[in-house]
Amino acid sequence: MNPVELIIKKRDGGRLSGAELEELVQGYLAGRVAEYQMSAWLMAALLRGLDESETVALTRAMLASGRQLKLERVRVRKIDKHSTGGVGDKVSLCLAPLVAACGVAVPMIAGRGLGHTGGTLDKLEAIPGYRVRLDAAAFERVLKSAGASIIGQSNAIAPADRRLYALRDVTGTVESVPLIVASILSKKLATGSDGLVLDVKAGRGAFMPNLARARELARALVRTARNAGLRTTALITDMSAPLGRTVGNALETREAIEVLHGSGPADTRELTLVLGAEMLVLGGRTRSLRTARALLERALADGSGLERFARMVRAHGGDARVADDPARLPRARVRVPVPAARTGTLTAADAWELGWVSVGLGAGRTRAEDAVDPAAGIELCHAVGERVERGEPLAFLCASKRSLVERNLARATAAFRIGARAPRARLVLERLER
Amino acid sequence: MNPVELIIKKRDGGRLSGAELEELVQGYLAGRVAEYQMSAWLMAALLRGLDESETVALTRAMLASGRQLKLERVRVRKIDKHSTGGVGDKVSLCLAPLVAACGVAVPMIAGRGLGHTGGTLDKLEAIPGYRVRLDAAAFERVLKSAGASIIGQSNAIAPADRRLYALRDVTGTVESVPLIVASILSKKLATGSDGLVLDVKAGRGAFMPNLARARELARALVRTARNAGLRTTALITDMSAPLGRTVGNALETREAIEVLHGSGPADTRELTLVLGAEMLVLGGRTRSLRTARALLERALADGSGLERFARMVRAHGGDARVADDPARLPRARVRVPVPAARTGTLTAADAWELGWVSVGLGAGRTRAEDAVDPAAGIELCHAVGERVERGEPLAFLCASKRSLVERNLARATAAFRIGARAPRARLVLERLER
Repeated sequence: MNPVELIIKKRDGGRLSGAELEELVQGYLAGRVAEYQMSAWLMAALLRGLDESETVALTRAMLASGRQLKLERVRVRKIDKHSTGGVGDKVSLCLAPLVAACGVAVPMIAGRGLGHTGGTLDKLEAIPGYRVRLDAAAFERVLKSAGASIIGQSNAIAPADRRLYALRDVTGTVESVPLIVASILSKKLATGSDGLVLDVKAGRGAFMPNLARARELARALVRTARNAGLRTTALITDMSAPLGRTVGNALETREAIEVLHGSGPADTRELTLVLGAEMLVLGGRTRSLRTARALLERALADGSGLERFARMVRAHGGDARVADDPARLPRARVRVPVPAARTGTLTAADAWELGWVSVGLGAGRTRAEDAVDPAAGIELCHAVGERVERGEPLAFLCASKRSLVERNLARATAAFRIGARAPRARLVLERLER
Repeated sequence: MNPVELIIKKRDGGRLSGAELEELVQGYLAGRVAEYQMSAWLMAALLRGLDESETVALTRAMLASGRQLKLERVRVRKIDKHSTGGVGDKVSLCLAPLVAACGVAVPMIAGRGLGHTGGTLDKLEAIPGYRVRLDAAAFERVLKSAGASIIGQSNAIAPADRRLYALRDVTGTVESVPLIVASILSKKLATGSDGLVLDVKAGRGAFMPNLARARELARALVRTARNAGLRTTALITDMSAPLGRTVGNALETREAIEVLHGSGPADTRELTLVLGAEMLVLGGRTRSLRTARALLERALADGSGLERFARMVRAHGGDARVADDPARLPRARVRVPVPAARTGTLTAADAWELGWVSVGLGAGRTRAEDAVDPAAGIELCHAVGERVERGEPLAFLCASKRSLVERNLARATAAFRIGARAPRARLVLERLER
């Protein structure tokens, strides 16, 4: 098959067959399809679209490019969770062990920070010693012993996705719903989960800036996952302001531990419970979301979620003492307040802007090869809707050097809005069932 | 400037500034814009389009990537001709010396065969010794002495076009009117001509399959050329059947020489006169197309066009004796008739199919690095509209080996249609003035 014909077919609005998409993906990995040909095809696909059968076929081809885990020694149901990315979203860290404590295993392949958003792997690596790279056998062992394991994508899992993602990143072809769907699901299918709960973020801090676009992505994800044989529920959740009170790796890990201790900010705790309940229902633990939520609340109250967290961290080579003593996490040398410009109600904390401030402080990357500073980030003092007094801190910026804070202070200040009345905030905007 | 931003801007339907297009082209040549980024941009440009100001700016940027000839020592007006490519189109070979004989210089940068179409350079190289590579000084000397010179594109002329063209060829991004316009005009502007006559082909054997598409291209070429400061006239001419009676390099060169001898097929002669008259008018030789045509007819009758041809060939190192003795051109070892399947009127000779048959016989390339067989090709025995008797030859297939002929005989036979009445054939379909 000539790659140029496959490019022209998509360019002219045609529909590629499963065999053609398989040849495209395999040919790309084997070097028969050049980088410049694949990028032209990706641009044609972004502008012309892929229909449902093409999206399923592309997902399957990317999945087939790597290993598919069976995890047969894990006897309980396995449910995965995926978030499309946001600011301050540390939910995976507390959610995975909490769900495991309730009898459903959570095999999770997570990512690194991307653009203004944080990444679960970077947050876990803030724990001294935590290794995100495990081979398939070790992954299965940890899953069996701790019930939850969060690892990075290895070359064995959907290598086509890794290469395509890197190419899309530098060719302006990221923002395509079918390409995003295939990228997410090819990895999710590889772990052999029995079901998937999706947290599709909408708002300033999300990749989908509004509800309509988020709904489009959520529907496509649920439809394609079902067509690929994976039971899936999606929640569309608000990402106009950062989730919880922290942005940055160690800061967020600390907040996730607080949630497992039964405290932590209301929204982080609530999202953990809502997503967890969906996972327990998908995992067959109960048919009622209400019962599922009660199970999770009990696992928070009796410390069994925290215990699973410590077990998972230890199994990954990390210092499990952080579970009871979060002060062991790295702490920033510089911590500078962002004062409120006037008295009133905090009406907005712009997640997009604060995400980039956090990156600027050292918590994220501007190039793939950059290292992150685990201690850097933002501590937020108020949730949107709360009253603030002129001069009191709205947030603290944490970094290794004062110059980094100074460079980001104006942007951080401008990210907050103080007014008369805040819009009513809803955490879960919509729910789409499998 | 970040290449990804330029890709995203075009992808989302934005308009690139002159500075942005210049940076894109320069960055590509300098390696700051990768091949896979340029191909993604090209696909976005093909699908989203470029407006007139972008097309002019892209043309200028590609022109500025190389050297611009002045040809100041050539004192007469210089008029160039460009054909968008067809099957059997050998007009440049007789047209350039004929126009030169009438006092207008013709500096022409020609191309090689592409796809199913032939290339002027390949035809000239059928003449023993003819060198298509001359440096700028030699080009100017030949122009001054013979009045016409046809050379290949060197690395000095619009190198961005060379690289972009090669990339477009393998990424499905050839068929974009603004990209085609910029490619053609960047080269044409580089020779410092005073005017340009365009032969835009329409029909089965052309890159523009119908009149509407050809008109779109012709209009864009004339508009952009004028905006770039080049006086231009365009003719849209029929390319449903091959031009003249030969397809293939030496065969076509022979036919062009026949035209210069005052004979040759009616359509080849007519197109030469029509295009030549436009060139003489653009070149200020006369204001009347009728007078211009009379001048050209005289130059055919008195042999001065043929004499210029011989001078040009000699100046390029070629065997000028072919002008009076075309039998010196290479001749194929195998020559096999294609018999008429029935008696009737020849209603069609499919230029697209016959172009590919000619390539299959060895006259063209399927890969850029292939060599062509100068002697291979097709001799047509009848023009469309003529009566044919069952069993008589419609054409002869010429090749170096019988197996090549056998492989192409069925396709050649199927390319001809014999029916009751042929559609009225018009050579010049439309004329667009500067």
